[in-house]
Amino acid sequence: MPPKKPSGTLSPPVIQRLSEYLLILEQFIAQEQEVVSSRALATVYGNNSSQVRHDIFQIEHKGSQSHGYLCSELIKDIRIALNLQNEKNLCVIGMGNLGRAITAHVPFDRYGMKLSASFDVDPNVIGKKIGGVEIFNSDDMSNIIKEQNITMAALCVPASRAQKTCDLAIHAGVKGILNYSRIRLKVPEHVSVHYEQIICSFMQLSYKCSL
Amino acid sequence: MPPKKPSGTLSPPVIQRLSEYLLILEQFIAQEQEVVSSRALATVYGNNSSQVRHDIFQIEHKGSQSHGYLCSELIKDIRIALNLQNEKNLCVIGMGNLGRAITAHVPFDRYGMKLSASFDVDPNVIGKKIGGVEIFNSDDMSNIIKEQNITMAALCVPASRAQKTCDLAIHAGVKGILNYSRIRLKVPEHVSVHYEQIICSFMQLSYKCSL
Repeated sequence: MPPKKPSGTLSPPVIQRLSEYLLILEQFIAQEQEVVSSRALATVYGNNSSQVRHDIFQIEHKGSQSHGYLCSELIKDIRIALNLQNEKNLCVIGMGNLGRAITAHVPFDRYGMKLSASFDVDPNVIGKKIGGVEIFNSDDMSNIIKEQNITMAALCVPASRAQKTCDLAIHAGVKGILNYSRIRLKVPEHVSVHYEQIICSFMQLSYKCSL
Repeated sequence: MPPKKPSGTLSPPVIQRLSEYLLILEQFIAQEQEVVSSRALATVYGNNSSQVRHDIFQIEHKGSQSHGYLCSELIKDIRIALNLQNEKNLCVIGMGNLGRAITAHVPFDRYGMKLSASFDVDPNVIGKKIGGVEIFNSDDMSNIIKEQNITMAALCVPASRAQKTCDLAIHAGVKGILNYSRIRLKVPEHVSVHYEQIICSFMQLSYKCSL
């Protein structure tokens, strides 16, 4: 008898791996590979096949592991498990190079998200569009977040303005923040913060390279 | 008798947390807070005090946990544990918005790294400088990586050029790649790849927000 599927929510490391498996599976599909074994997926991801099987066991996937997983079906089930089918509106705050890169190049619409507004304080960029997304005046942030029902924000402002901007966004209704500033934020309990500190990724890589 | 310190290398999750503790401790110092308890550090990081103590136990830190850690001493020991005292040269390949953001704003020199070159294929940007770093022609990448003893590269090129660019950089001597393109790379065993897929961070945040 197979072990019972665990109930409840997925843990952060499992969510992280599933999101990366999703991109790998899409890459397989693009290369016209229809079936993948847990071992092949593990080799590309960089872990081991038992962890892959364990992760896939966490979601409602009916594919047989003995004959490999059908990429298209596994993609579908990961998308459901990660709740990517319910579209969420998001905004990017701070349109320096990083904010522009996110606005112009991240394919949100393929993953159940809609980038509906971006904000900056610079009069030279306010009113312009990047990747089809309008740059609004940060002074209007509160109203626009409410009007457009925006629930997530990427925070790309300098550290000195990060906490104040975060407070404003949360007050207007944001429940999730992807924080690219180098400071830790104080947020109420109902708000999630995901930290993306670019320098930390380099430190981790530097450590691996020094072994 | 206290438990013996584990020997050997640090695991990726421990390295990740230590690098983030480092930034938090620096934030404490900037706010003139000299001592921190494992509980306070855990609250700011978002984990629990026993994990903080366990992580700090992995490194050679002699501070007493009962009276809290001295921030400056803990910073020093994390830097040693992460090998940040040995300067490594790195480059950024691809000077679109993301490459520019990394080049202009990531404070490598504070963390034992030196951004010594950046590369692009666009004749309009080749020869210019961003944040004091010269943009070279990608055709000269191989020679410059060798000449400047560059061992790490941030890959910010489009997916279609990622594998070819990665191969070239590795052939010239790069041992660690921070990959911002959305494809998985094939690399020899002696090379480390750290994946930074921005859309995956948004998927993880989106999942947390949908609970």
